[in-house]
Amino acid sequence: MKLFLPTLALSLLTVSCTSTGLTDDKSKLAVSEQASSLPKNVIMVIGDGMGPAYTSAYRYFSDNPDTKAVEETVFDRHLRGLSSTYPAPVSGVVTDSAASATALATGVKSYNGAIGIDVNKKEVQTVLEWAKLQGKKTGVVVTSQINHATPASYLAHNESRNNYNEIADSYFDDGLKADLYLGGGWKYFIREDRNLVDEFKQAGFHYLDNYQGLANLPNNKPVLGLFADVGLPWALDDTNKHRLSAMTKSAAHHLVNLQKHDESPDKGFFMLIEASQVDWAGHGNDISDAMAEMDDLAKTLEYLEHFVEHHPDTLVVVTADHSTGGFTLAANGKYEWQAKDLRTMQHSVYFIAKQLAANEINADYVNTLFNLELSQDELNLLSKAKATPPLDNHKNIYQDKNTSAAELALLKQVKLIMDNRTNSGWTSGGHTAIDVPVFAFGKQSELFNGAQDNTDIAKKIFTLLGKEVR
Amino acid sequence: MKLFLPTLALSLLTVSCTSTGLTDDKSKLAVSEQASSLPKNVIMVIGDGMGPAYTSAYRYFSDNPDTKAVEETVFDRHLRGLSSTYPAPVSGVVTDSAASATALATGVKSYNGAIGIDVNKKEVQTVLEWAKLQGKKTGVVVTSQINHATPASYLAHNESRNNYNEIADSYFDDGLKADLYLGGGWKYFIREDRNLVDEFKQAGFHYLDNYQGLANLPNNKPVLGLFADVGLPWALDDTNKHRLSAMTKSAAHHLVNLQKHDESPDKGFFMLIEASQVDWAGHGNDISDAMAEMDDLAKTLEYLEHFVEHHPDTLVVVTADHSTGGFTLAANGKYEWQAKDLRTMQHSVYFIAKQLAANEINADYVNTLFNLELSQDELNLLSKAKATPPLDNHKNIYQDKNTSAAELALLKQVKLIMDNRTNSGWTSGGHTAIDVPVFAFGKQSELFNGAQDNTDIAKKIFTLLGKEVR
Repeated sequence: MKLFLPTLALSLLTVSCTSTGLTDDKSKLAVSEQASSLPKNVIMVIGDGMGPAYTSAYRYFSDNPDTKAVEETVFDRHLRGLSSTYPAPVSGVVTDSAASATALATGVKSYNGAIGIDVNKKEVQTVLEWAKLQGKKTGVVVTSQINHATPASYLAHNESRNNYNEIADSYFDDGLKADLYLGGGWKYFIREDRNLVDEFKQAGFHYLDNYQGLANLPNNKPVLGLFADVGLPWALDDTNKHRLSAMTKSAAHHLVNLQKHDESPDKGFFMLIEASQVDWAGHGNDISDAMAEMDDLAKTLEYLEHFVEHHPDTLVVVTADHSTGGFTLAANGKYEWQAKDLRTMQHSVYFIAKQLAANEINADYVNTLFNLELSQDELNLLSKAKATPPLDNHKNIYQDKNTSAAELALLKQVKLIMDNRTNSGWTSGGHTAIDVPVFAFGKQSELFNGAQDNTDIAKKIFTLLGKEVR
Repeated sequence: MKLFLPTLALSLLTVSCTSTGLTDDKSKLAVSEQASSLPKNVIMVIGDGMGPAYTSAYRYFSDNPDTKAVEETVFDRHLRGLSSTYPAPVSGVVTDSAASATALATGVKSYNGAIGIDVNKKEVQTVLEWAKLQGKKTGVVVTSQINHATPASYLAHNESRNNYNEIADSYFDDGLKADLYLGGGWKYFIREDRNLVDEFKQAGFHYLDNYQGLANLPNNKPVLGLFADVGLPWALDDTNKHRLSAMTKSAAHHLVNLQKHDESPDKGFFMLIEASQVDWAGHGNDISDAMAEMDDLAKTLEYLEHFVEHHPDTLVVVTADHSTGGFTLAANGKYEWQAKDLRTMQHSVYFIAKQLAANEINADYVNTLFNLELSQDELNLLSKAKATPPLDNHKNIYQDKNTSAAELALLKQVKLIMDNRTNSGWTSGGHTAIDVPVFAFGKQSELFNGAQDNTDIAKKIFTLLGKEVR
């Protein structure tokens, strides 16, 4: 890592932030308008719920136990600073994903639940919309449904993140703002009252509904790829455990190709990528899936390092919208956090719990499911959970009405076994207000050094996309 | 905040880190030896236990509720990156204060409990010892006893942090490494078997045992100031709630004066400052005292900003050794963290509990103690705790054998009331392995940008003190 900025950046761009920019009037960026100083492609990556405990834990999870050293991660290579995440005052200091994604997308603080609108419910322009207006290609790649809070905050304007159908409709009705959408969402795009997939196809979109199709995208068509009813399967349960990386690679190639085959001048692209399910694992206090989702994100960033090497006029910015679950690396007074047993997991805790509910609990079967050797005490705890499910079950985050009490009790017990083996702590099923890490690499990535607010990130990106920001 | 480095630094100093330096062989610094590129004074500040949740929380604690904006803190102004804190492999990934302070002081990973020695129990040179050898004045200012793990790791070499008397003895017997010591510790320095204070005095030290004396330090004498039997009182209970700031101001003046009145050339100084009790509040899961200790640290840093303005050849580096308590800003699924009731506290939770145990619990008295209006429910909880102390009391971190069961039950209840009012979460009475923030300002502070390991911080400081580091 070079600590000093390239001379080129110094000569082309004069930037001074009067402060960390924690307040609106303090983050004025004065950027000279030489086009050569601005990145052609901007890639915004959000690890939903990925507070600093997650990136710290990922270092120990991904560490090679056969070497003496603790290996650096892709996050370590590109750390720039931290970002505050508080929403508009009406919502206190703990943000939800909608308010935070709206801040990251527009530079404006709003209330929890707001999608691309301010506290007065007035629509505010997003960096993706601005990029599209500048002639850039645009894309969105997520592991949630594509109309979930984070991508919606870049693509839509709605008073509530919960209006999933309205938001899906707006993706078509308000003009096609992206040239590529990859993620989940059949439930919202193929409905009894409306088939948006057909409408996208009629508007010229290439549609795909399986990962195999990612290898054969037509060079001259915009793309809609939906791969699940709601969110994608957990990384650990998916046919491709690195499906965010695979989608990202395909998306980056496609956006470059689209521009090549377009008659208009090559203005590059803006892409939003979200590792959506780090947050979902955090809500479930589920360390196994959290680390697997982080691993998919890390592989995505390693691919983007490769992309930037070949397209040096690209900026990649990575951050989180907030931290989830009050996750801590150690708990209960013990000075210990152990990633070992997480590294070999082959199934999500949800899958394991469902299988244990449906099948006889015996050592061989359980050990195969966990890909670990469980102790007799652990086996007894699982049998007990199955036989006498307690009343205070964990909420099933998929809210699957068909989930049995035994399944929920087993789910809770499976997670407790992994908490106990790792010594992970959790304080909440919701979010917390800790500052989140900011990473950046590629052209003008130095702009993200130090402390900043989530609104500053949008303002810097607007500036780098050539918009004057006050 | 200037995002770009001054040209001076670029021309005088060529620094390249081949990586984030997370492993020993990766943090080679090549610094040219022009004296003018090195800071004359180096001030290392450690917020013991101050993980990123503490600096985030402090922003909301210190926010002016009368303005719409969330004001930036002194931490926001100087954020540079994050640091990993893991100890030597034999101790896993969660460090104690001794191993981490040894890493910060020497650049060498050791086992938990180690003071200035490596895993083979071999003594390793500390940055303070090296600075002294270079002719710099040296000082140590802490709110713990001066022979506690963190300062001891800069001043001593011992196989265990618990050998308090041995460590105190070594401060004298191994040569007087510092020209100024301020903190607590009568218990260890004035003992039945040895009176180290007398020995320091006979060796020419000026001794003081109260804060008033800080205003009248003799210009030509080294100083030993001990102000408490063990650690200083909690900031909230002390006669000066900003005692770390007061000691630091006096210490900085004195080190400058000592150098002026010395016959040898002015080589500047190295000073270690520790806000020791952020950690103690974390161990006690005590948000009220944590924020008051953070406030004393913030005021100390604001003074150091002023010092650097007048002594621009000074570098200030600020970090934590680890995070404590698994503190989270929100808990129990609620999207809320409230600092309001913390801002008016006038006494530590320990003082409040002792008073409630000794006196009748009635609304007026309780409200006066808390400087808050408690609800009837809260008053009932306090009365119940006093009447029927439960068996699973919190450990009293002072381990005062005379503490009654009622006092301990009240202490626990007082802390729960503050947790409930703020919606703070905790997962442990010990430490966690989350990366900690790194702040720096003054000369060559840019060297601390990005991700780094705690050993890298020592290596960078050695380099800036003119030592070649491999």
